[in-house]
Amino acid sequence: MSGRLDGRRVLVTHADRYMGPPVVELFRAEGAEVLDSTDDLTVAGDADRLVAQAGPIDVLVANFAGPRSTMPVTSMLVDPTAFTDDAFQGYLDELVWPLVRVVRAVLPQMIERRAGKIVAATSASPVRAIPGLSIYSAARGAQNAFLQVVGAEAAPHGVQVNAFGPAHIENNMYYTDEMLADPAVRESFESQIPAGRLGKGHEAAELALALATGASDFLAGQLIPISGGWAT
Amino acid sequence: MSGRLDGRRVLVTHADRYMGPPVVELFRAEGAEVLDSTDDLTVAGDADRLVAQAGPIDVLVANFAGPRSTMPVTSMLVDPTAFTDDAFQGYLDELVWPLVRVVRAVLPQMIERRAGKIVAATSASPVRAIPGLSIYSAARGAQNAFLQVVGAEAAPHGVQVNAFGPAHIENNMYYTDEMLADPAVRESFESQIPAGRLGKGHEAAELALALATGASDFLAGQLIPISGGWAT
Amino acid sequence: MSGRLDGRRVLVTHADRYMGPPVVELFRAEGAEVLDSTDDLTVAGDADRLVAQAGPIDVLVANFAGPRSTMPVTSMLVDPTAFTDDAFQGYLDELVWPLVRVVRAVLPQMIERRAGKIVAATSASPVRAIPGLSIYSAARGAQNAFLQVVGAEAAPHGVQVNAFGPAHIENNMYYTDEMLADPAVRESFESQIPAGRLGKGHEAAELALALATGASDFLAGQLIPISGGWAT
Amino acid sequence: MSGRLDGRRVLVTHADRYMGPPVVELFRAEGAEVLDSTDDLTVAGDADRLVAQAGPIDVLVANFAGPRSTMPVTSMLVDPTAFTDDAFQGYLDELVWPLVRVVRAVLPQMIERRAGKIVAATSASPVRAIPGLSIYSAARGAQNAFLQVVGAEAAPHGVQVNAFGPAHIENNMYYTDEMLADPAVRESFESQIPAGRLGKGHEAAELALALATGASDFLAGQLIPISGGWAT
Repeated sequence: MSGRLDGRRVLVTHADRYMGPPVVELFRAEGAEVLDSTDDLTVAGDADRLVAQAGPIDVLVANFAGPRSTMPVTSMLVDPTAFTDDAFQGYLDELVWPLVRVVRAVLPQMIERRAGKIVAATSASPVRAIPGLSIYSAARGAQNAFLQVVGAEAAPHGVQVNAFGPAHIENNMYYTDEMLADPAVRESFESQIPAGRLGKGHEAAELALALATGASDFLAGQLIPISGGWAT
Repeated sequence: MSGRLDGRRVLVTHADRYMGPPVVELFRAEGAEVLDSTDDLTVAGDADRLVAQAGPIDVLVANFAGPRSTMPVTSMLVDPTAFTDDAFQGYLDELVWPLVRVVRAVLPQMIERRAGKIVAATSASPVRAIPGLSIYSAARGAQNAFLQVVGAEAAPHGVQVNAFGPAHIENNMYYTDEMLADPAVRESFESQIPAGRLGKGHEAAELALALATGASDFLAGQLIPISGGWAT
Repeated sequence: MSGRLDGRRVLVTHADRYMGPPVVELFRAEGAEVLDSTDDLTVAGDADRLVAQAGPIDVLVANFAGPRSTMPVTSMLVDPTAFTDDAFQGYLDELVWPLVRVVRAVLPQMIERRAGKIVAATSASPVRAIPGLSIYSAARGAQNAFLQVVGAEAAPHGVQVNAFGPAHIENNMYYTDEMLADPAVRESFESQIPAGRLGKGHEAAELALALATGASDFLAGQLIPISGGWAT
Repeated sequence: MSGRLDGRRVLVTHADRYMGPPVVELFRAEGAEVLDSTDDLTVAGDADRLVAQAGPIDVLVANFAGPRSTMPVTSMLVDPTAFTDDAFQGYLDELVWPLVRVVRAVLPQMIERRAGKIVAATSASPVRAIPGLSIYSAARGAQNAFLQVVGAEAAPHGVQVNAFGPAHIENNMYYTDEMLADPAVRESFESQIPAGRLGKGHEAAELALALATGASDFLAGQLIPISGGWAT
């Protein structure tokens, strides 16, 4: 069960955040040549430059998380007046704009070759409301809706664009080891998840791998929540 | 069957666009005092000022459409590289930011009174992909995801926040009389709609009225597509 | 705010169960002539006979709950082997078959008149999994899927078929006064509902009224969960 | 890229119908020992016997289609009065009852071993209404709702239950070679699918394989439509 990505060039964005580390690890183990970009891609032109420098890309893993300064999930108060314009702009800058731009930059080469996979790591949060996360969910909702349409547009060109939406999966941005070291915090999450446990990054990476290979050949613009049954 | 909004003060945003005109007409006929704002609310601070000047508001109809310069639906090409940063920023400026800001501005007074209704006119487009509308759908997806969470947050305070999502309903922004004067264009829409016809603005206004009155008393963050069965 | 159903003949099935009592009360208060059937409609031919005897019907409220012998929600164990063929057959007999048959019986007269509303009281349970309710959810899922298609089929004939899906609403079948008299049981429900409370039957009846009147004129096959934000 | 199912015992039901043939072929190519049952499993007790005889099963592919006598998709008229009790009973007998019973029969051994995968081949039709298919969609809706709950129930026991929902994929029951030999019929389907083509059975089998292996380790009760973007 290896070599599933032999000979494939894969670009992973925000490779040091969120689903990036487990995806990079698994995809390399499966034989891919992985370009692991840690640019935040928050400036217009960054995504175009990254893609131009990368050359031919078979698979784009459009993984975005941030901003780094944002409080982890449990610190957000349920207070609709607490979020500021700056906070929302931060989510747009790090989650939405880079996704739109990097997808736009990479699609032409894939369409020209009539082959390519885009796999986005977004979130299941727009599938089920989490009080306190209104502006985060807005940014993730923008991602999911964007990808659904681009998936429909790209499909007739032989290019598959799909997303997986993690929720309640350990990662270095929103469910950090530090947070989960508190048994009460961990328990408060686990009690909500039908599977009774948090997910592991490598479990999400396996789903990303499926979407980067044959399992997505007839999927187009599909979001697959991965959340231990929390959101389906 | 009148007087359903007697004594209610209603603020309608973008009152001259999209679902604004039929909502204003119906809500006035039902006895409401309607404040019909035609500000575009694209500048930070606009929404706060509007709400401060409006005074007590029982119902906010958060209706947004635009920008006015945007091509109507059928003119958009299925070309993922055609949309520009400016076009997406335009949608964020006229659809997403004003919604976030006006909801944030009006919620405190409603929560304080433990009473109030927010009814948003968004779109069903994130429910079903329309090729060519990726960035429009992204903006509408942000709206829907935002409202879902705010609806959950506001519910325990006795305030109901919900949305209806028009698709294939005649309006002065996206399905204009001018566009629909072309029988081929009209037919291309009608053939996709199970109901076999486009919807009328007053039909959406009736749903908005339901959401502004007792029908939403136990709804929270619900999006109701209204599209003649096109998206369910 | 009365007389919204003046001159309308309304047939309510299982009128003494679930959403039946509050719907009958509200619809009568709004001026309808309500035929409140308490037949269980479990035998082939029952639905045809009921509709034939009823004569012209403007609105069918297809409300089904049962069987009466079924344990209330909290008594069901999370044990996939515990449910029997008999239990599932019971749900098919009281929830699914009567719905299919009564809708089939009433549609021809509505289609002939090019006017009519069917409002089904189903459930939000297929929208969000409740461990322990697999076969109940299967039956409700069959209802929802059936109505979605019939709604699309009926729409071009001027007949609107839609559903509301209660969850966590007090009723005499699944959330009985007896059950809720136990504070621990009540609290276990309330803690899961964003609104922080159980819904009341009359709140669901208000949504049913909206679907029986103008608010549904451009809806077709729509399911509207009503659950205080629990399922959206 | 082979051997992904080495050493696994897989039971495939209705193995000669629908997604059965491509699943059997791919799973064998990946090293599985495949038990390909062609029983229709319409009689109470059949499923229990099948599972008892099969012995230890690592993966159940719960694939059901039928009845064989049913008209193919395009032959169904949009006529809500045309379907009979017999037709609906046929769908219940061949699609719903065998699924409920075989899942119920196989779960205990998987739960005991704290390992196992159930992958169901259902349908995307409940996700998007197809006029003419109301009772078929009801049966598929029952399947999907059932699996969603069972998935939540089984997850804490280390057993993953998920489904893929084909639509517009060539198969020997609903989209037969015979039907598709008519260019007008083929074109009428293809024009509705964003991908611009019908799917192939082996594409669905690849998704089934993903769900039978690591990609589903943190999925629970998930339905993944596979339809070239038609339903998402």
